Amino acid sequence: MKNKKVNILVTNDDGISAKGLRVLINSVKEFGNIIVVAPDSAQSAKSHSISQSVPVSYKTIVLEENYKEYSCSGTPVDCVKIALHQILDVKPDLIVSGVNHGSNTSVSVLYSGTMAAAIEASLNGIPGIGFSVDDYNTEADFSKATPYIKEITKNVIKNGLPENTSLNVNFPILENISLKGIKVVRAVKGNWIEKFVSAENPHKNDVFWLTGSFVNFEPEAEDTDEYVMKNGYVSVVPVKFDFTNYTFIDELNNWNLGKKEQS
Amino acid sequence: MKNKKVNILVTNDDGISAKGLRVLINSVKEFGNIIVVAPDSAQSAKSHSISQSVPVSYKTIVLEENYKEYSCSGTPVDCVKIALHQILDVKPDLIVSGVNHGSNTSVSVLYSGTMAAAIEASLNGIPGIGFSVDDYNTEADFSKATPYIKEITKNVIKNGLPENTSLNVNFPILENISLKGIKVVRAVKGNWIEKFVSAENPHKNDVFWLTGSFVNFEPEAEDTDEYVMKNGYVSVVPVKFDFTNYTFIDELNNWNLGKKEQS
Repeated sequence: MKNKKVNILVTNDDGISAKGLRVLINSVKEFGNIIVVAPDSAQSAKSHSISQSVPVSYKTIVLEENYKEYSCSGTPVDCVKIALHQILDVKPDLIVSGVNHGSNTSVSVLYSGTMAAAIEASLNGIPGIGFSVDDYNTEADFSKATPYIKEITKNVIKNGLPENTSLNVNFPILENISLKGIKVVRAVKGNWIEKFVSAENPHKNDVFWLTGSFVNFEPEAEDTDEYVMKNGYVSVVPVKFDFTNYTFIDELNNWNLGKKEQS
Repeated sequence: MKNKKVNILVTNDDGISAKGLRVLINSVKEFGNIIVVAPDSAQSAKSHSISQSVPVSYKTIVLEENYKEYSCSGTPVDCVKIALHQILDVKPDLIVSGVNHGSNTSVSVLYSGTMAAAIEASLNGIPGIGFSVDDYNTEADFSKATPYIKEITKNVIKNGLPENTSLNVNFPILENISLKGIKVVRAVKGNWIEKFVSAENPHKNDVFWLTGSFVNFEPEAEDTDEYVMKNGYVSVVPVKFDFTNYTFIDELNNWNLGKKEQS
């Protein structure tokens, strides 16, 4: 329908070899020129980290007119930054990230490299969408996600997103399910209950592997990502980065911090 | 005054050898039993990242009754997690992080390992405070910060902090300054304007170093961290993690996403 093809930057945190990345590329390629800049290795749980004490490098993998693919030595946010500031001549119209192997609901958005890339997009004035499936299987069948990825991507290209806003899209595990549709919701309150599993490495040193299980603090709340996913829907949460707790500023002022030193 | 000494966990992101960590330990040790669990190497800009594909290990450095010190192979958030779930027998009453060499105002809180540790505290129901000085010099004189660190720490021990809330404390560069006091403010809107500086490594490959300068989008806003620091005050921002953009949920519902597929 459109004459001008949009430029879409694709990244992820599971790395350039991940199946989910290929699902995402194939889902969005009909909408524009594709530029893939993805980590050369798995970068799960890297959050918004960037390479500061080491440099970043990248390799060209495919260089066609409407499809370019690069691998990058850094984190997902490094990938977005080096794409925007070094590799690309034009600012992309959209940045999509994923499809992540593992869901990014609730507090997991804080750890997620997938969502960090989408948030980094929004910080640069570019609409960003992170896609994740609640399935850690590297060979999981994500094909049922494709029509929803297309639908959401098409609408974001058409409507744009508000300032500093990205979308966090989560699919339930897609085996043996017929998806019921899309629900726009908020991130549920919850946290990971964590435990370290100790092991001995070959050098006879103790090492500790972080493990955890998610606990939903409000399992009955129907307007949340976890609830709608459990009920067979695709969850869409609009995400905005703002860490200030505005409601506590007045009370904190009442502490009269530092007043004694200054009198 | 108090009979029961509180247990204070101290960490940072510049690593166990950083001068700022020693300043922080010395500033808070009068308030309780100190347990230091800090990264064994510099972990700047690691955000809320955790070690997932590699295990974490730690080493005992000091083991006294009221002072214990450990180095940890992981990120600042790994340090907090392994302290809480593996090293400590009791939940600490307070987690302090820093003093970071470099400020963590505005959007920098998203990248900061220092603040990630404080946020991780709050996610575990523990008051957390991150301290940072706007000075990257590894030998910077942070002594002027000490009375303020004591004052803020004392008040947090006394008053506690609201659910999921930590404090982001930033000092201006402390050379040639007489601090005027403390201001409770919000994080200013701003971002980093970034550029990669290319270099050739000894293997004749191009590598790219991320550089950037901070741009304040609202330099006249007096109720912000950057403004009060520029005017000689210590900035205190209450921080709460919540990424949902609630105000956009209604509009996003009007997009009627996925409705066609389901009809």
